[in-house]
This record gives sequence, structure tokens and C-alpha cells, in this order.
Amino acid sequence: MNNNTITSPKGFLAIGLGCGIKQSGKPDLALLCCPDGAAAAAMFTTNKIVSAAVLVCKEHFASAAKVGAVVVNSGNANACTGAKGLAAAKAMCAKTAKELAIKPEQVLLASTGIIGHQLPIKKIAVGIAVAAKKLSASPAAGLAFCRAIMTTDTRPKYAVSTVKISGKTVRIAGAVKGAGMIGPNLATTIAVLTTDAAITKPMLRRAFKNAVGNSLNKLTVDGHQSTNDTAIILASGKAGNKLIAKPNAGFGRFEKALCEICTDLVCQMALDAEGATRMFTVIVQNAASKQQAQQAARAVADYDLVKCAVHGADPNWGRIICAVGSAGVKLNPDKISCKIGSATVFKNGKPAKFDPKKVSRIIAGKHHTIIVSLGAGKSRDFCCGCDLSAKYVSINADYHT
Amino acid sequence: MNNNTITSPKGFLAIGLGCGIKQSGKPDLALLCCPDGAAAAAMFTTNKIVSAAVLVCKEHFASAAKVGAVVVNSGNANACTGAKGLAAAKAMCAKTAKELAIKPEQVLLASTGIIGHQLPIKKIAVGIAVAAKKLSASPAAGLAFCRAIMTTDTRPKYAVSTVKISGKTVRIAGAVKGAGMIGPNLATTIAVLTTDAAITKPMLRRAFKNAVGNSLNKLTVDGHQSTNDTAIILASGKAGNKLIAKPNAGFGRFEKALCEICTDLVCQMALDAEGATRMFTVIVQNAASKQQAQQAARAVADYDLVKCAVHGADPNWGRIICAVGSAGVKLNPDKISCKIGSATVFKNGKPAKFDPKKVSRIIAGKHHTIIVSLGAGKSRDFCCGCDLSAKYVSINADYHT
Repeated sequence: MNNNTITSPKGFLAIGLGCGIKQSGKPDLALLCCPDGAAAAAMFTTNKIVSAAVLVCKEHFASAAKVGAVVVNSGNANACTGAKGLAAAKAMCAKTAKELAIKPEQVLLASTGIIGHQLPIKKIAVGIAVAAKKLSASPAAGLAFCRAIMTTDTRPKYAVSTVKISGKTVRIAGAVKGAGMIGPNLATTIAVLTTDAAITKPMLRRAFKNAVGNSLNKLTVDGHQSTNDTAIILASGKAGNKLIAKPNAGFGRFEKALCEICTDLVCQMALDAEGATRMFTVIVQNAASKQQAQQAARAVADYDLVKCAVHGADPNWGRIICAVGSAGVKLNPDKISCKIGSATVFKNGKPAKFDPKKVSRIIAGKHHTIIVSLGAGKSRDFCCGCDLSAKYVSINADYHT
Repeated sequence: MNNNTITSPKGFLAIGLGCGIKQSGKPDLALLCCPDGAAAAAMFTTNKIVSAAVLVCKEHFASAAKVGAVVVNSGNANACTGAKGLAAAKAMCAKTAKELAIKPEQVLLASTGIIGHQLPIKKIAVGIAVAAKKLSASPAAGLAFCRAIMTTDTRPKYAVSTVKISGKTVRIAGAVKGAGMIGPNLATTIAVLTTDAAITKPMLRRAFKNAVGNSLNKLTVDGHQSTNDTAIILASGKAGNKLIAKPNAGFGRFEKALCEICTDLVCQMALDAEGATRMFTVIVQNAASKQQAQQAARAVADYDLVKCAVHGADPNWGRIICAVGSAGVKLNPDKISCKIGSATVFKNGKPAKFDPKKVSRIIAGKHHTIIVSLGAGKSRDFCCGCDLSAKYVSINADYHT
């Protein structure tokens, strides 16, 4: 077994197990530990209703100089649970800290699952005690972590990469859970990344913000931002590279590698989105501003009728243009053009001749590109989406409270 | 057969037939005529990409003092069709005008169907000639009009009402087509209303704007605004009431009756939305402003996960709160409360005890209410939505270009 999960970078131990939150008995508790402490960066949901986990994690992230552990549970979001939920989130951290002999504020946490149910904190405490004893740097332990953060994901999602910095090999790895409720801003639900790079907290934060902004934040599955979205990266500093403390060439390579990992994870999320069978990237160009390009790209990627057409491999470009028209961005109706893959389907406001069978085959692939030109400026941005299938509905109509 | 369609008010003739736009051979051409001319009001999509029909209809509406006819085709949206599409839309009006011996600018028109295909104008011209000869005030002719504007609707939608004004009986009737692409602002696709009220154009416009604003504009099926949304009302003045020329008591009764007709049509649209099995009304109260209340209500009604939960009759209120949190409105997390029907499911930021089976039964009905209190002010507004089913996906994945 290759070690291509989050225990691949030096200085990390992990584990995942089932502690009884999920009625199915599937893994639901994940623990990551950096025994010598790590620099950390984190990003959270901008939903105005946030989970107790997010509240506590933010507080700990702000106060801890070094992070020692990340504890994640699936099967329960611990959101909309009031003071009792907040106490449970704190108890999760306190128990983890006690087992690992670190301070509670050195523990970051994340929860994902159903909203509005109280955490079974006793079961979780027992699980944390067991997990702390099983922590390991083995590939199996890393994979167990990835499995334990899953909800409706059908497979674990992880990626690893290496990059040379000041002559040393630096490893970066990440695990995510995706599936549903993936929408505007921090389209993540839960992402935990590790690296053994030696990097200062400000530079780690800068690289992470940029990488997340160009990957996880550019994915929409259903336009839904969860109450629990959390993305965390820990840097152990064990790679032996010269400390990255400014935006030099080493930082550039680190940032690029991090961005690639995040993009890899995003594609895995899109292709394993609830009910999804394929993904697409919408590129909007010639927009009046980058913000407007993003707004238009997101409008297309979020448009249920476009997503249904992609599901049916239907080159129904009219829905794309309709989505752009309702996106609230500046555009020139006589200059709008659209390409699906390499095929021009709409040019300067008029239908273009194309082979529908060929374009249908392009859409039927795993990942195709939609390019829309607005004729309103010079800016460009992109957004990733996936098809909408009947299975998305059955998953979300049957996932009962 | 009761005359409860658009030929019920005095002074109107109508017909619908199939002229070969739809490959299925189903009715696709609808004609409404007011031989002595009518005062008119109209509202159109605010999508930045509009159909040729909308462009021409707006132009005619602005220039004609009296409207003589409305011609509607289904099966082809005549949108994104460039100069050729514009010429076809003008030709539709010119042909209608010629057959009815009126001026082209006295003809309003609307198109609905697939985007990006040129209108088969020769077939339509033949159809208009036939339709002009078949025009009738009979209930069957009114119903034929209602059927011919349908796309993926499974049944025709119409309503009629009467109201006493200055001692005379005034009739108001309406026909709509709904189904998909029903979203922000003018959630209509096509709505054609008739009345025999004697009312000035400014007062008709005022009543119509208010009625549409409180009904058709408060419905979302998929958050998608079409390129073709058009709502038209014609007033023949044949009821013999004292001309409504100012906002007096008669105007008030007319406006109320018109609003009720529109609300009735909205409920028919929601319950026959693509794949829908039930509808719901989201009322947001204690918002900082009416606009914010509308924004939050629409966010809930548009939220796919809420729509899936409604489809599954699942009292998963966490998704409602999550939708509100991501709506970008002012709220007080410790004061938010939520009711589904009569059951309080969330109170002052904490889960409330409720009987899930009872609430599931409430949701499983034809039409239930979701009330959300934001604890941020005193404003209130509402939005109607419907459930999201696997059938919506199959309809829109299989509706091929």
C-alpha cells in the first residue's frame, strides 16, 4: 500500500474508527496528531449559522501557537444545537487533549452530518480514547482517517504530492469529504491537509488561502454552503527545508504544489458528488471584472437545467446562455459566444452550426469544459460543477432525520 | 362545460391548435382576440438575454394604444436566434394583424419552448390563418388556448373570478403555463389574463403590477428565470362598470380579485411544476426589511436540499436553517425559530421537541407552510416553492435539443 494519504508527510499520525455516531456502524471518528506541534492555517464557512465545531475550532485556532491534533466526527454536524452543542464540542477537544497530553486549545475540530441533533458525547469520548492509542503513521491508518470523515461520499478522497524546496523533498497531502451541500465560498465541508514543509504560519496561511480560493472555493455541487465547512492545513516542519518565511521561489513551488493537490481533491469531490456521474468546468471570459466572471461562471455551474442537460449529455446550450443572462453581470447580447469542449455552439449572439452527436459525446465524458465569452471586458474566471441526477434527489429525500 | 377560461370575460375570442412546431403534433399555437380593442398591461422577464418575442412584444406594447390580439406559440422560445429570430417574431405579428385586419403593433406575442432554434415561420403563418377563422368565445375555444401554450405542463391551468364594481359584474380570467424555468422575478413563463372591466391603462397596470408582484413573482420552481417570461392582461371594458380611473373602492375590489386569480394560478403552477408532487409556502418574519425577508424566503424555497426533504416528507429543519444562514440576511442566531405547519421545530436557536411522524404527515400534504423568524426586525414576506423529485431531473435530462 502506497502512503498517499495524510500520514505521508513526516511528523503525522492518524487513525479513523467507528464509535457509534452513525447507526450503520461505519467509521465516524477521525484523529490526526502532530506530536511535535504544527503551524496551522484554517478557513471556515461564511454561513451566518455555524456549527458548534466551527465556533470552537475558530477559537482554538486563534489562540494556539502550535496545533497538536485535529479531531473530526461524521454522522452529526453539531449545528443548531445551542449551548449543549457548544459544551459537547469543547468536551471533544478536552478529551482529545487529555489523551494526547496537550492543551485543549491545541486541538482543532470539525463535525459533519445531520444538523440539529445533539452529539453522543459519551460514545465519542470512548472513541477518542481508543483512537489515541491506535494512532499510526501507516498508510492504513491514514486511509482510515479519510474513511472516517465520509458522509454520503462513496469513496475516500485523498491526494499527495512532493516538491523540492532548498534541496529537500517536501510532502503535501490532503483528505476531503464532499458529496452534498457544496456551494458558494469554501466549497469543502471538511478538508484536512498535512505537509512536512518548514513554513511560517503567515506564509502557510497565504499559500492556503490562495490554494483554497482557486480550487475548493471554485466548486459548486448544489450551491449550498454548509454550516460546518472547514479546511485545515498543518505543517510539521520535519522536511528539513530552509524555513519558508517570505514569498520566495520555494514558497512559489510550495504554493503551486498545494494548489495542485487541492485541485485534485476538488475533481474527486465533483466526480463523487451526490448522484454525480460527470463534472464540468465553466470558464467565463471577456467579463467586465474577475468578480463578474466568477458570478457568471457560478450561475452556469449552479443552474439545475444546465446540470440536468449535462446529465443527459444534451448539447442544450440555450440553458447556458439563459443562466448567463440571469446572472446579473454586464454582457453584450450581440457578442456572447459559447463553446462546449472544442465545439462553438453560439457565436456573437447567433446559433452556430455544430454536430450535436459529437458535442453529446464530449459532454458524456468524465470532465468537459464550457467556455462563455461575454463581450463586456477582459476578465476571466472559472467554476467547477457536476451533473444533477435523479440519484441526488433520492439521496437527499431519503436521508431522513 | 363551464366557461372558466379566458373567454369568460365579455369581448374576447380565442382558439388553440397544433401547427407543427412540436414534433409530437400537440397544440402549439394560441390566439386571443379582442375585436373592439383592449387596454393592456404587461410585464416581462428581467433576464439580460431576452427572446425575440419579448423584444417585439415590448415594442408593440409601448406603441399601441389599444391591443387587438395576443398570439402565443409553444415548442420554440425564439430566443438566442439573432436577426432571423427577430424577423420571425415580427412576421408572426404581421400575419396575425393581416388575418384580423388590425395593425401589427396591436398584436402582442409570446413564445415558449427550446432556446436557440429558428421558428418554423411558414408553418406558423398557416396556423395563424386557420386559427383566425376558428376564433370563438366558447368554453372549448378558451380551453384550447390554455392547452396550446403548454410545454412540459401536464394539465392546462386557468382560473376565473367575478367581482361587483359599481353594480356590475366584472369577470377576470387567466391562463398560465408553468412547469420549469420558474425563478426570481416574474416567475411566469407565459401568463395571459383577460377581464371585461372598464379600467384605464394606468390603473390596469397598477393593479397588474401589484397582483403579479404578490403572486407570480413569489413562486420559484428552480430559481431559473427564463429568457421569455411574459405576463399580459387585456381589459375589454365590456362589463359596463363605471370606468376605473383612480384608486377607489372599485379599484380595490378589482385588484383584490385579480390578485386572487393570480394566486390560484401560482398554486396550479407549483403543483404542476416539473416533477413536483407538492408545494410549500415559506413565510419569513421578524426580518430587518421586507427585501431581506423575501431574500431569505426565496433562499429556503430555492434550496435543493429543502426541496428534496419536502419530496421525502422529511422534517429535516436543519436544512431550512442552513439555507437561511447562507441567504446573506441579518439574523440573530439565538432568536431564530422555525415552524413547519403548526409544529415548532426550532426555537430561539435550539432544537424543539416535536413529533416527527406528525410533521412528516403535514409535509406529505398538498401544501404546507414553513415559518421562519429571524429575530432581526419586524418585516415579513413569503415565497412559494415545490418539491424536487427525480422526475424533474429525468424531464430535463431527456428534453433533448
